[in-house]
Amino acid sequence: MNIKDIILKKSHGKALSKEEIIFFVNGYTNGEIPDYQISSLLMAIKLKGMNEKETFELTKAMLETGEVLNLSKLGMVVDKHSTGGVSDTTSLVIAPIVASCGVNMLKLSGGGLGHTGGTIDKLGAFDGFNTNISMDEAITLTKKIGCCVLSATANLAPADKKMYALRNATSTVDSIPLIASSVMSKKLAGGADAIVLDVKYGNGAFMKTKKSATELAKLMSDIGRRYGKKIDYVVGDMNEPLGYNIGNTLEAYEAIEILKGKKGKLYDAIIELSGKCIALGLDIEENIATQMAIDAIKTGKALEKFKEMVKAQGGSTKLFNGLKLKPTLIIKATQNGVLKSVNTEELGILVGQMGAAKQTLDDVIDYNVGIKTFHKIGEQIHEGDTLFEVYAKNKGQAKEFAPKLLGCYKIV
Amino acid sequence: MNIKDIILKKSHGKALSKEEIIFFVNGYTNGEIPDYQISSLLMAIKLKGMNEKETFELTKAMLETGEVLNLSKLGMVVDKHSTGGVSDTTSLVIAPIVASCGVNMLKLSGGGLGHTGGTIDKLGAFDGFNTNISMDEAITLTKKIGCCVLSATANLAPADKKMYALRNATSTVDSIPLIASSVMSKKLAGGADAIVLDVKYGNGAFMKTKKSATELAKLMSDIGRRYGKKIDYVVGDMNEPLGYNIGNTLEAYEAIEILKGKKGKLYDAIIELSGKCIALGLDIEENIATQMAIDAIKTGKALEKFKEMVKAQGGSTKLFNGLKLKPTLIIKATQNGVLKSVNTEELGILVGQMGAAKQTLDDVIDYNVGIKTFHKIGEQIHEGDTLFEVYAKNKGQAKEFAPKLLGCYKIV
Repeated sequence: MNIKDIILKKSHGKALSKEEIIFFVNGYTNGEIPDYQISSLLMAIKLKGMNEKETFELTKAMLETGEVLNLSKLGMVVDKHSTGGVSDTTSLVIAPIVASCGVNMLKLSGGGLGHTGGTIDKLGAFDGFNTNISMDEAITLTKKIGCCVLSATANLAPADKKMYALRNATSTVDSIPLIASSVMSKKLAGGADAIVLDVKYGNGAFMKTKKSATELAKLMSDIGRRYGKKIDYVVGDMNEPLGYNIGNTLEAYEAIEILKGKKGKLYDAIIELSGKCIALGLDIEENIATQMAIDAIKTGKALEKFKEMVKAQGGSTKLFNGLKLKPTLIIKATQNGVLKSVNTEELGILVGQMGAAKQTLDDVIDYNVGIKTFHKIGEQIHEGDTLFEVYAKNKGQAKEFAPKLLGCYKIV
Repeated sequence: MNIKDIILKKSHGKALSKEEIIFFVNGYTNGEIPDYQISSLLMAIKLKGMNEKETFELTKAMLETGEVLNLSKLGMVVDKHSTGGVSDTTSLVIAPIVASCGVNMLKLSGGGLGHTGGTIDKLGAFDGFNTNISMDEAITLTKKIGCCVLSATANLAPADKKMYALRNATSTVDSIPLIASSVMSKKLAGGADAIVLDVKYGNGAFMKTKKSATELAKLMSDIGRRYGKKIDYVVGDMNEPLGYNIGNTLEAYEAIEILKGKKGKLYDAIIELSGKCIALGLDIEENIATQMAIDAIKTGKALEKFKEMVKAQGGSTKLFNGLKLKPTLIIKATQNGVLKSVNTEELGILVGQMGAAKQTLDDVIDYNVGIKTFHKIGEQIHEGDTLFEVYAKNKGQAKEFAPKLLGCYKIV
């Protein structure tokens, strides 16, 4: 077998065989095939596509280059994966909701990526919360309280790690089969029995259209099922922030508010996803499972479970008593109008630049910077209404970012 | 400017600007942009194409990374470029024909590439023929006798040299804009005032169809004209060897036979190309120029000019007195039939493997190995007719190759 023939075959739009896929994934991972041949192949895959079987074989080949976690001691374990967005705290909230309903969730999470926040960063808002725990500790914790979140430090799908860095350097990230195999190689290596996929679309998501998000969701579902997992998915709008708060502490606090019963788009998304997780985990009808999620919030047992999880992983529960932060600057509307659109990606980037996300690998996150928003698209805005509360490092930073934040809102 | 943005833009099928093209060509040539980003871009170019203006800018950017030869001392100089084929000795013969008609031709040539023979290798059949001469010597020779062939050793389009090696390793050779810019960057750097392009198609050429060969020829012509050159082109069939002989000495001898008046497909191609070269060189009607080429052969002055060129470059003229080689093996037809098709590429590869072409960089060429063929497609073959005369290193090699050579003929 020859990598040049494989590149040529894909460049002519033909499907690669299982053997050819294993050949290039292993050859690249062990350094026998150089970067410049794989980047050419990745571009051919991006432009000519891969069918579902090829994408499954790519996923499988990548996940088999590393460890596959064994969670069998826990019985049924459900995982939930989001493709990421802005003000999206679903992962924080769903683990305690489903755990309080008797479903195990052991979540391997990452830091922020691009304009999107990361679950690990948000949990950092609970002072002392330790996500750097071993798999054995994670299993023990999950057995005890039903949920746990840890950093994805295990040697999961090293081929994907190497390939993702190359894709990032060669503008081959935006390919549905490559995204699907990248996500699923790590998710399937994570060892859960059932996975609920949360695929976002819109100007704050990696997928720009509902069509492409649906295509990605279906493809990832097919791959997961072919691998023998129970899978469900949700395709959700990210043309504006999902919740109202952006920034780690502010989002962690909003997660608590949701568990205290605060309604809205974020609540709706959480209930839908939790329902699917519970349905798969307990093998029951989705409408019954959804009602269980609603009740878990109503009765306060999901909130209690969240507190229990934070405590169990060493985090401070001070935030449960209320948000102590004070805004550095309040930005008010100077005219009447309707919020027509939000540049969601830019909002996410701006809050990241204020200090909420690492800008370089050595950066230190400022958990307390962020913004609160007060309107959703289509809502009436009156002169004098608060548009943003800015929680900045200082007044100077707040003033610097104010016009940029305002520039993300189109009010007409 | 950013190479990732350039790759992304091309992967979305958009045209690159002149500045973007110069940026990546120069960045790659001076080592600032790594192989793996350029190979990804090359695949995007192969699959999304480049328009004529982009291809021109790519050609210009590549040729400007090196030397551009100045042939102004010679007045009008015509060059002729062939995309290569099997048993194609047009370059050997056209230089003396046009020189004998008063047109300067200073040819920069290369060795064999893949299954195709190279002009430099064929001239090696004239014992002592020196193609490693300086540009000053070449200009002096051309001034004196009107033609000259030298190895392309000058620092012409180094970007193309680097990019071609990468294309070869990443299956991005088969792209019309990339082929056109590669050929034209070197040709235009060669300094001729007029260029006649000879683009072959068929199973013995790099272009497989007449349509793609025509597209390539037109694109190269447009690039040349945009650069201010006089250009003409011929698109020719290469679904069988152009002449009858394959192998360096055998082909050199066939070139002499043509100049002595031997007719056939090779003669026709030579007359057509010579006519175009003379028409551009003397700025006269093509039919008049073509008649001049025919007369140059008829009167023997083209043959004399060829001998003069061989002598002037230090080559032995023994071959002009007759072919002294004896065939090692004669392969005869074992049944009646019609020659339906020829695997031309494979024939070229087989003769190369016998020793006619370098198989590795350190290889030594055996000028005397090769084959003579006796039939063209569509011709009747009778049992007992000679199909091939094999000129091998020894009987063993001839017997080893005999079934492979026969396998290239489809007789039905």
